Amino acid sequence: MSIIKSQHKEEHLGSSDFITDIVIGMSDGLTVPFALAAGLSGAVQSNAVVITAGIAEIVAGSIAMGLGGYLAGKTEQEHYQSELKRESDEVEIIPEKEKEEVRLIFAEYGLSDHTQTIIAEELAKDKVKWVDFMMKYELGLEKPDSNRARNSAATIGLSYIAGGLIPLSGYFFTHTPAQGLLISAVLTVICLFLFGYFKSKVTGQPLFKGALKVTLIGIAAATAAFIVAKTFNNML
Amino acid sequence: MSIIKSQHKEEHLGSSDFITDIVIGMSDGLTVPFALAAGLSGAVQSNAVVITAGIAEIVAGSIAMGLGGYLAGKTEQEHYQSELKRESDEVEIIPEKEKEEVRLIFAEYGLSDHTQTIIAEELAKDKVKWVDFMMKYELGLEKPDSNRARNSAATIGLSYIAGGLIPLSGYFFTHTPAQGLLISAVLTVICLFLFGYFKSKVTGQPLFKGALKVTLIGIAAATAAFIVAKTFNNML
Repeated sequence: MSIIKSQHKEEHLGSSDFITDIVIGMSDGLTVPFALAAGLSGAVQSNAVVITAGIAEIVAGSIAMGLGGYLAGKTEQEHYQSELKRESDEVEIIPEKEKEEVRLIFAEYGLSDHTQTIIAEELAKDKVKWVDFMMKYELGLEKPDSNRARNSAATIGLSYIAGGLIPLSGYFFTHTPAQGLLISAVLTVICLFLFGYFKSKVTGQPLFKGALKVTLIGIAAATAAFIVAKTFNNML
Repeated sequence: MSIIKSQHKEEHLGSSDFITDIVIGMSDGLTVPFALAAGLSGAVQSNAVVITAGIAEIVAGSIAMGLGGYLAGKTEQEHYQSELKRESDEVEIIPEKEKEEVRLIFAEYGLSDHTQTIIAEELAKDKVKWVDFMMKYELGLEKPDSNRARNSAATIGLSYIAGGLIPLSGYFFTHTPAQGLLISAVLTVICLFLFGYFKSKVTGQPLFKGALKVTLIGIAAATAAFIVAKTFNNML
């Protein structure tokens, strides 16, 4: 019973790509702009510089993640289509070789020669399904959703922006980078933990441990950025 | 002949995870710090501020990417192990249900009831291979390499640092952010194109088109960051 339930849950979670994209964009958006702002807080005297750098980072990061993700998705689609064409051609032109490939997949799992032959011959009866089978089980490729790349890019990019504005907001209403950092750190650590918790829920990880991981990555990045930026700035 | 060759090539490329990690880290490292530095160049008067912000970003980004990648790899391993345990338990406790799942996989591809039964019965003879089969073909999970997470994190993080220092180097030996930006842009666009070319080679994309994509993402991110940071700075 619990097996069926957890499988059902996996399917359910797998379908909420939208929520996964929000979590990806937002937890990265919280981490890097937070760490950058923290790093600068130890090195410059003006909130305006921290905010300007933070805004520049959010723009750069959201475009790199969003556009990068979009183009990666497009590439995945093109790759799928070209492999689909190749497999379709292969079952037409060299069906015996393709049957041999089917046999090899099952030979690996110890199935008898006789059974390998039956599988290959039966699969070969329906070429569309045969090609589908080869795509999934020989090449390990799933058909990508054609709207997915665009939607995913927009969601990740916008979530990165929303996430990045949280740590930056600490510098809007304070007068010195030190004050800004204090508010920013408190706000961001709370949000990192909440998003880490939510992310663990979406990806099926242990909730508290997952939340702690996300929070610690953020704190580690911010602490390292702070120390290195301060050291570097003293040298310049 | 060409089919065999290209498959052989894919296997070969698939094995060079190290090179893939270098390319991932470096092309991201080139993009975001470049765009951040460009954005700040339109808004601040001192190279020291651009360099400090750039260093803080490189530290933050490399830790977020490296540590994030490491923990994601660890999670993947834990997930694989827990699913492996579940499948192993299932073939012991509810073998008939697992056989039914095997049958369902093949029913989807139009194989006859008789053949489904033969496959399920033959697979069930070797429980280790049966579990392997379920892991790969029911759940779509491949066994993760246990050293991979750590090595991958280090490679991506270090490549991000190496990539990020290229755009920043333009500001080291110039006197104003405008001069720095000029050198930085020329250097980075050349490197983005070279890395895009190399990345396309590694991932099997069209070389020139792939190189252009990587370069244009970098230019788009830098241009947007420049415009937004300048606008924002004028408002502050």
